[in-house]
Amino acid sequence: MFEALVKHLEGVPHTSIRLREKNIRPIHDQRHDEGGFDTVVDDYDEVTEAVLSHDFLIFSTPIYWYGMSGHMKNYVDRWSQSLRDKRYSFKESLGQKQAYVIATGGDQPRLKGLPLIQQFQYVFSFVGMPFAGYIIGEGNKPGDVLSDLRALEEVKIFNEWLKAKQ
Amino acid sequence: MFEALVKHLEGVPHTSIRLREKNIRPIHDQRHDEGGFDTVVDDYDEVTEAVLSHDFLIFSTPIYWYGMSGHMKNYVDRWSQSLRDKRYSFKESLGQKQAYVIATGGDQPRLKGLPLIQQFQYVFSFVGMPFAGYIIGEGNKPGDVLSDLRALEEVKIFNEWLKAKQ
Amino acid sequence: MFEALVKHLEGVPHTSIRLREKNIRPIHDQRHDEGGFDTVVDDYDEVTEAVLSHDFLIFSTPIYWYGMSGHMKNYVDRWSQSLRDKRYSFKESLGQKQAYVIATGGDQPRLKGLPLIQQFQYVFSFVGMPFAGYIIGEGNKPGDVLSDLRALEEVKIFNEWLKAKQ
Amino acid sequence: MFEALVKHLEGVPHTSIRLREKNIRPIHDQRHDEGGFDTVVDDYDEVTEAVLSHDFLIFSTPIYWYGMSGHMKNYVDRWSQSLRDKRYSFKESLGQKQAYVIATGGDQPRLKGLPLIQQFQYVFSFVGMPFAGYIIGEGNKPGDVLSDLRALEEVKIFNEWLKAKQ
Repeated sequence: MFEALVKHLEGVPHTSIRLREKNIRPIHDQRHDEGGFDTVVDDYDEVTEAVLSHDFLIFSTPIYWYGMSGHMKNYVDRWSQSLRDKRYSFKESLGQKQAYVIATGGDQPRLKGLPLIQQFQYVFSFVGMPFAGYIIGEGNKPGDVLSDLRALEEVKIFNEWLKAKQ
Repeated sequence: MFEALVKHLEGVPHTSIRLREKNIRPIHDQRHDEGGFDTVVDDYDEVTEAVLSHDFLIFSTPIYWYGMSGHMKNYVDRWSQSLRDKRYSFKESLGQKQAYVIATGGDQPRLKGLPLIQQFQYVFSFVGMPFAGYIIGEGNKPGDVLSDLRALEEVKIFNEWLKAKQ
Repeated sequence: MFEALVKHLEGVPHTSIRLREKNIRPIHDQRHDEGGFDTVVDDYDEVTEAVLSHDFLIFSTPIYWYGMSGHMKNYVDRWSQSLRDKRYSFKESLGQKQAYVIATGGDQPRLKGLPLIQQFQYVFSFVGMPFAGYIIGEGNKPGDVLSDLRALEEVKIFNEWLKAKQ
Repeated sequence: MFEALVKHLEGVPHTSIRLREKNIRPIHDQRHDEGGFDTVVDDYDEVTEAVLSHDFLIFSTPIYWYGMSGHMKNYVDRWSQSLRDKRYSFKESLGQKQAYVIATGGDQPRLKGLPLIQQFQYVFSFVGMPFAGYIIGEGNKPGDVLSDLRALEEVKIFNEWLKAKQ
């Protein structure tokens, strides 16, 4: 899906980040510790700074066990830390962006991926970031999704829309 | 929630595993690589062997960003590896167990936690493991949940049921 | 469920309305007709006036085909008419109430009844009426639900809460 | 949506039934009455006989209050009666068909219409009828949906697929 997407993004300036190539620790939940969160030395800040410097965020994930990948969940969980991080106006900043979801799975994703879409709905709503839309693609092996004509058509429409709004 | 639960589990032989104290890598998705999955050296096998040696599994998680914790997601994602691991009859073994979910969150968890319950429903269904039930508790800070009288009452009923089925 | 509920409501002044004993027409959708909605002669107004004169609304329904009963759906659909009815400040009035749902079904209602709970969530949210909670009971035949100890316990807690808030 | 759909169905033999033009009573739930269900004199049988004589069923409904229309709910609720009707092998017959859903709504239907899709998923699953897919269109007033380019494109793909499978 990601590949089909990126191909279409030609002509739209964008940054592509592969979370699975980043080192991002699961959250150590210190929301209620006296001293707050300890500094974590990993790639989280680098990714977050890229996120904060863009207007439109596409969350592209394989559907693993009917949810986002653990890599992405680890990243999103860490937002709890950024919400308390004085370097950022994290929530305010996200609230001025828009979010889009691209999810691909092999087991009836247009039905069994719906709880994941609803989860993203709450995530984006919590930070006040409009949920501009989503595409669910079907495929198990890499490349499979290229046979999902409906998803490919949706990617095309999405990209035209993205280009028009520049 | 976990604390309230464990207190009630007195008299029910059980093993308690805290995933956040374990080192479990996010999955490196090699399902479609020629040689299959590489061996990963971390605590995954130890946890999985404990899981496989019990009849009844309680998945207890804080609701982080409307999903299970990244720690738990990392663990569950790795099941894809165990499904292909010749040492285990992973799916068959899980299919003879029962699963229960205890989830606690601070933002209207009995509504906004429902996509998570639905996700677990698909996860358990995929491996053929009956979903015996779930309890959703409300609370933000550790200990908060002790004011959620309904959840505490449900934990009590659940524990009586657990004791009776031994 | 309804019976268990009403028994517990002793001591809480309330009005009980059985929609299946009322004659309420499905909506004739004239939202976009020039002259608006035609007057409908049935029991809708009588029920709505009772609804508007109470502070707390309990929507109690069997789960039929994973949704509310057609009787209740017909009633709720007609709200679209009341939203445009100059006799009422319908939305403002509902926004000052609270809503609760009691739903009973025979086919894994605590899982398969969740889309219904999510539907109610959107319904109440649309009119700005806080969703105070819900109870899902299990039972097929009338009376079955009396064996659902967890639901009965929840009804008890709910009733104590209702009494305390008077 | 319905209009856009029917236009594309040219060349696919089909029967179009408008439930709102039919007289179908809400169910009188006599599942547990000794004598079973009383005969109801309305248009239900006529519609059901048309349903049973086709291979592919498209449930097209406006999204009213985040669910199917009361007209459609009344119809589906009555299936409980047909399941016990000796004239039909109702479940077996539906199990040999396929179902598709077309739903249109004005309030973020691709998000807030998801519980309705999940409800249909359980309905079809109960009778063993494969859920071939769904399209969610956005629009409030009649005709609005013709501006929803994505939904229109999906209708086109759906119709090509329908034609190819004849």
